[in-house]
Amino acid sequence: MEHNLQHTISLLARTPAALDALLRDLPEAWTLRKEGENTWSAFEIVGHLIYGERTDWMPRARIVLQFGETRAFEPFDRGGHVREMQGKSLAQLLDEFARVRSESLEELRALHLRPEDLERRGLHPALGIVTLSERLATWAAHDLTHLHQISRVMAHQYREAVGPWSAYLGVLQCAGHSS
Amino acid sequence: MEHNLQHTISLLARTPAALDALLRDLPEAWTLRKEGENTWSAFEIVGHLIYGERTDWMPRARIVLQFGETRAFEPFDRGGHVREMQGKSLAQLLDEFARVRSESLEELRALHLRPEDLERRGLHPALGIVTLSERLATWAAHDLTHLHQISRVMAHQYREAVGPWSAYLGVLQCAGHSS
Repeated sequence: MEHNLQHTISLLARTPAALDALLRDLPEAWTLRKEGENTWSAFEIVGHLIYGERTDWMPRARIVLQFGETRAFEPFDRGGHVREMQGKSLAQLLDEFARVRSESLEELRALHLRPEDLERRGLHPALGIVTLSERLATWAAHDLTHLHQISRVMAHQYREAVGPWSAYLGVLQCAGHSS
Repeated sequence: MEHNLQHTISLLARTPAALDALLRDLPEAWTLRKEGENTWSAFEIVGHLIYGERTDWMPRARIVLQFGETRAFEPFDRGGHVREMQGKSLAQLLDEFARVRSESLEELRALHLRPEDLERRGLHPALGIVTLSERLATWAAHDLTHLHQISRVMAHQYREAVGPWSAYLGVLQCAGHSS
């Protein structure tokens, strides 16, 4: 299916409430554990989503609209979420994610993007020429990547507990797909 | 981590609200589309979860408690959800899932299972001897398998729209893991 800005906004608007319903007040055995060294817990993933709102999604969309292909995006700091998490509870992060996402969508809606705006081109430091449309579709798919990851990280905690059923549970066959 | 019944219930209790927050009133382009032939849409997955509540999770737990290893579970009908879906909207299915899950958990809590009950053994037609503990842990991991699947099915709809970013999005590398 083609990119549809209203569909993208519909999804982006729901992610904070979906994560809130899944994670708030859940035992820390689910939310703080990881899949191993150098992997993220659900808690860290929410921190990463907040950091993306602050530094990645609307900021880079603004760069496309202002500078087009003449200025490359700054590389995204995959460790940047550590600052977001310091001294905070998961409940605070969930509140913060809902707030910053809501602000991002307010800004996006206020741009009143027309179809020709969505075809505006920007310069990605590794991927080369990209369009604003691709950028916004990626924002929605990025939410889904992390929902996919959270479900996998949490299921991993029961890898032993499920006994022989591990063979039937698709999520336990998923080794992750991040580069 | 070992199976913890309270952790299992905590997760099981949250899944209906998480799916509700994610899917209710979302455009059908997200909820009714699939990954291809013989795959499920988010809508169908909610139907499957309802069918599992009616025929699989507490019913099979009851069989373990009543019959132990002397009676094998009846095979689960993977097409059984089709009846659940007929003539219903996604909003109706989400309401129904919340209701049947709540009933299941009420029944589970009323059993007041002790550690020795969790070690009770049952007979799975293909897997052989399984414990009630493994069965209940699998219920939680099964929710997570389908959250993992829903996020992947939805992300698939934007496979083209994200352009070159598809290489970076883990969920788009996931080919599914069902047997």
